[in-house]
Amino acid sequence: MTSFEDWARERRGHFEAAAERALPAGVFPELLQEAMRWSVLGGGKRVRPLLAYAAGELTQAPEPAVDAAALALEFIHSYSLVHDDLPCMDNDSLRHGRASTHAKYGFAEGVLAGDALQAEAFRVLASVAVPGARLQRLVRLLAEGAGARGMCGGQWLDIKATGAGVSGPGLEDLKRLHAMKTGALIRAAVLMGAASGEERLAVPELFEALSRYGSAVGLAFQIVDDILDVTADTATLGKSAGKDREEGKATYVSLLGLDEARRLAAEAGREAAAALDGLERDPRYAGKTRRLEELARFVVSRGR
Amino acid sequence: MTSFEDWARERRGHFEAAAERALPAGVFPELLQEAMRWSVLGGGKRVRPLLAYAAGELTQAPEPAVDAAALALEFIHSYSLVHDDLPCMDNDSLRHGRASTHAKYGFAEGVLAGDALQAEAFRVLASVAVPGARLQRLVRLLAEGAGARGMCGGQWLDIKATGAGVSGPGLEDLKRLHAMKTGALIRAAVLMGAASGEERLAVPELFEALSRYGSAVGLAFQIVDDILDVTADTATLGKSAGKDREEGKATYVSLLGLDEARRLAAEAGREAAAALDGLERDPRYAGKTRRLEELARFVVSRGR
Repeated sequence: MTSFEDWARERRGHFEAAAERALPAGVFPELLQEAMRWSVLGGGKRVRPLLAYAAGELTQAPEPAVDAAALALEFIHSYSLVHDDLPCMDNDSLRHGRASTHAKYGFAEGVLAGDALQAEAFRVLASVAVPGARLQRLVRLLAEGAGARGMCGGQWLDIKATGAGVSGPGLEDLKRLHAMKTGALIRAAVLMGAASGEERLAVPELFEALSRYGSAVGLAFQIVDDILDVTADTATLGKSAGKDREEGKATYVSLLGLDEARRLAAEAGREAAAALDGLERDPRYAGKTRRLEELARFVVSRGR
Repeated sequence: MTSFEDWARERRGHFEAAAERALPAGVFPELLQEAMRWSVLGGGKRVRPLLAYAAGELTQAPEPAVDAAALALEFIHSYSLVHDDLPCMDNDSLRHGRASTHAKYGFAEGVLAGDALQAEAFRVLASVAVPGARLQRLVRLLAEGAGARGMCGGQWLDIKATGAGVSGPGLEDLKRLHAMKTGALIRAAVLMGAASGEERLAVPELFEALSRYGSAVGLAFQIVDDILDVTADTATLGKSAGKDREEGKATYVSLLGLDEARRLAAEAGREAAAALDGLERDPRYAGKTRRLEELARFVVSRGR
């Protein structure tokens, strides 16, 4: 079997080509299309697409179906970065090592490119013909992961908490905030990958186990993000380092310290692995969880 | 048969109740939910829902299905108003005769409430179980009407044209801009209403005629909007009057004068009626186009 690095490289390359086809240059209005391409094709680890591809292996999901889910997820993630970077939000002019979308195209333009990308996410998701119940599940997973009960709700809590200092969120508040802001879309990525495959394999027990896995990976991801904000430099991150402390943001590091944050991330990684262990004991999924396990380890290891 | 006024009043009441159920108060994060409710439940003519209900009569669309389409359309329309009103866009603190969403809840909060409403639109659209091909069509119609090829693309052209003065758009540019900014979602409303009904009635000839109708109504709607910006006062409009001239925006009135703009709106109204005439000659749709015809007349008459 190919190594994780080779698999991830191949999947990323496959994803980039699919994204290039889904957002071709030259579509009218050309500059809007260019801004959308700048937001999506500008790099990134493609964690959500990789999670969708890995989860799709459990249900023998056909490639065009998982591609649509992967693109939709990454369009949502990309638009959220564009809006998070706006001057009225986190105000960051650097993303993926180059100008953020509004810094390059303008403030109003950034709002609109993000808005258009969210619509595009649902368009691309509905571009593949799948049975009605499956499409319904996919649209709902994406909308719930992205909306007020998920990503947008978490971002709302985040801007309300920023700068609140000692009166800011405690550890449980922070966990809830990030379970929505980052966790919901990561969990949606895993579930959407699985939901893109065969009905007879996409059963409630699977979704339950993957939901546990996705929540744990989402938690690990955010803790590691907080760790890297402190330990990595701007060049490595491709975005401004040290911003959390500057803005007086409560983070896992500010609340727990670096060592304890690392311990919590490792614990979340073990929780993710435990969820997969249960699936490995099921003959329908045995031998198919390896990429998900490697992805969980990849997420945790970035913070070491 | 009930009068248009009674029908519209009943449908609006029905829609408000459905919107209240779809966006209940008290959902966490409560203040985000409140901002979304402020944006949607704050009034408006509900033209898109009315168009969807009227078009649904042609295909015997079941009420829960058209409700879902109507809610989705109005959530998209509402979010677009919230984002259009932002300080970095049209910068308007008045909407539906009260504070616009960002004026009441904050700038970043307005961005997020709009973002969450767009996700909510697709969630509510997928909340009704319908055959796969039908849901696919509905999601695509909404996403294309809302996205870069539709509303967002038109708004992009609009911000690029604003203040451009004599070097700004000519009549054909303006028509293209508004066919995207306003027309695309109005056309989507008509088509989604029809697409919510029975497959045997939702045939290509119907979509073709309704597409012609929707484009004509969309054009009339925008011309009338431009006329009202000049002829009505802020209290009547519920939003700031006279803004177009203030901002040096090219409008149908600035390019054509008031009389010629009124003539063009009436012509668009006749084009809409002609599209319906063709359907009336089809036994499948005969006697079912009345509400659409009345809606076209309603849109045009507002500008007189």
